[in-house]
Amino acid sequence: MKTYRIPPRVFAFVALLAPLSATSQQAMPLTIKSQGSFFVGGEKKGVTQPATAEMVAQIGDITVNQMYVQYQIPLSGDHHVPVVMVHGCCLSSKTWETTPDGRMGWSEYFVRHNRSVYLADQVSRGRSGFNPTEFYQVRMGRRPIEQMPMIVSATHQLAWIAFRLGPKYGEAFPDQQFPMEAVDDLYKQMIPDLNATLPGDSNPTWRDMAALGVKLNGAVLMGHSESGFFPERAALIDSKGIRGIVSIETTCEQELSSAQIAELARIPTLILFGDRLDDVSVTLKSGTWTWGQALSSCKRFIDQLKKGGGDAEVMHLPALGIKGNSHMLMQDRNSDQIADLVIAWIDRHIEDRSEP
Amino acid sequence: MKTYRIPPRVFAFVALLAPLSATSQQAMPLTIKSQGSFFVGGEKKGVTQPATAEMVAQIGDITVNQMYVQYQIPLSGDHHVPVVMVHGCCLSSKTWETTPDGRMGWSEYFVRHNRSVYLADQVSRGRSGFNPTEFYQVRMGRRPIEQMPMIVSATHQLAWIAFRLGPKYGEAFPDQQFPMEAVDDLYKQMIPDLNATLPGDSNPTWRDMAALGVKLNGAVLMGHSESGFFPERAALIDSKGIRGIVSIETTCEQELSSAQIAELARIPTLILFGDRLDDVSVTLKSGTWTWGQALSSCKRFIDQLKKGGGDAEVMHLPALGIKGNSHMLMQDRNSDQIADLVIAWIDRHIEDRSEP
Repeated sequence: MKTYRIPPRVFAFVALLAPLSATSQQAMPLTIKSQGSFFVGGEKKGVTQPATAEMVAQIGDITVNQMYVQYQIPLSGDHHVPVVMVHGCCLSSKTWETTPDGRMGWSEYFVRHNRSVYLADQVSRGRSGFNPTEFYQVRMGRRPIEQMPMIVSATHQLAWIAFRLGPKYGEAFPDQQFPMEAVDDLYKQMIPDLNATLPGDSNPTWRDMAALGVKLNGAVLMGHSESGFFPERAALIDSKGIRGIVSIETTCEQELSSAQIAELARIPTLILFGDRLDDVSVTLKSGTWTWGQALSSCKRFIDQLKKGGGDAEVMHLPALGIKGNSHMLMQDRNSDQIADLVIAWIDRHIEDRSEP
Repeated sequence: MKTYRIPPRVFAFVALLAPLSATSQQAMPLTIKSQGSFFVGGEKKGVTQPATAEMVAQIGDITVNQMYVQYQIPLSGDHHVPVVMVHGCCLSSKTWETTPDGRMGWSEYFVRHNRSVYLADQVSRGRSGFNPTEFYQVRMGRRPIEQMPMIVSATHQLAWIAFRLGPKYGEAFPDQQFPMEAVDDLYKQMIPDLNATLPGDSNPTWRDMAALGVKLNGAVLMGHSESGFFPERAALIDSKGIRGIVSIETTCEQELSSAQIAELARIPTLILFGDRLDDVSVTLKSGTWTWGQALSSCKRFIDQLKKGGGDAEVMHLPALGIKGNSHMLMQDRNSDQIADLVIAWIDRHIEDRSEP
């Protein structure tokens, strides 16, 4: 009996073609080994809750600081390091899912490239919930109104500038990669940010991300914008489970000790920035601020890691000839291309360090 | 060359066995046709946001009342009516995912039974975000503290009683179906409820659920507890996309007009209750309240639908010999068994009404 085999070269060619088209990928069924959700961290806290129209006041315990994590493991997920994705300010894990214009997001794209993906809602956002204690105290007159935690929303007007959609609200950059026809969908993703309920110098999300890395027996931690430096902060708490760091469009801390730099230099680190960093500026109380300043802070940080022997790099997309990317580069029209760069970096720098 | 084949009868026997065990199902890969997330509804709202430590005050627009929806479509999803699942008070769509003790939740269970599943975070919860306007007004002294919207948390102590885990906090019913060893995980699911920011008589979640039904060209809407009567409320706004209603452990409204009853009687309706409804009582301002009262309200409602010619029933699990179910029956140890009852009801009453 004759057996037909696909010649290895043809097979390799077909395998090479498969990831080229996002359209064909979206049309193809996806087989996963397992999926689900769980919490990392969380502790009991006593609370006095004011009465409502129906309920009497409650004195009891609630759980706070837990981090909600949703995951998918592809069939060959064991062959690669898992990737943990954490969203930015005024957003949720929706960041990584279907793009505003309906294309596949990074979470599924990475799964289809055989990576286990873990999406975490930051503590105080989305399905992780938040600690309402200080609001209760204000409501009951036990805390002055001025100490009510700030709730931060990104207005459409602020997001347009801060996410670098265009030079002024309503006007897009001509080479804009963000799918501007779907900008209303971006606005729907923007939800109130309650991080002001957390201690600024020890955000529980950092500890929960470190614990997730340990639970996964090693993971790449990815953060964006507000959470862009959270992977580094997690590593400074416990680096055992952190195999690599991807920081996207963020400000890098400058006040790290040499011991902290030495600790971070042990972890391969990629920092990613889009285009037009100096073409818009945000007005802060302290003056104007640009994304170019954030890039500069990260270049200084990466230099420190390199001097400490680290495998670290800044990938500034326009320097690679990739133009027009917004702050939401994981949702831009060329999001697959940028995902490919990140996956290739993980392959080279984390999974097979002998072939740099 | 000899070929070994599995005899067809053995294959059929194995295929028959496969769906019987949740453990084996969890071990089997899952192939889906597509997945993703999107928003339903949402409108622009002008806002004045107080300054923060860094940011100047913002006057601009935000988007509110959008409903976040996450979905999976199985390979043969086209053969069945999609199912929309909406969580209850102080919870998120986590309700339907991995159970506290790590078993498969209803969302994946229904997908593995070839149903397209849509999980919606209620407007003002989870990834849908909430409208912070009234908090801003209090913060800026433009609204009295007493008018700050109530934030509702379920304390561990309240949940123990209200979810019927046992006769008093710390003591479980002996035949409890809820996985008590994992009760801490239930506490992590419980997040602040901001429904007090919504108009009580026209919750935007109702309108968004109705719109989702239309978008899906017909769906079964399922609600639980706080949202248990939301499918009916959605149908009273627009019933075009609502093929069936599953209300779980909720209070049924009593003040409906005969025109409203006639409208609802056109939609097959199942109402589901667990066990020990009168064995615990919750202390409200207006007196004590039991789940038995909720069951009575729903029996009266179902009687009204039946008198209006409706295909409607209350499934009270202990009456079927299924004992010990808590308020979180989709997370109880016998959650697969209860899911099977719901799926069988959908098959009989919605998908093939000629075989009742």
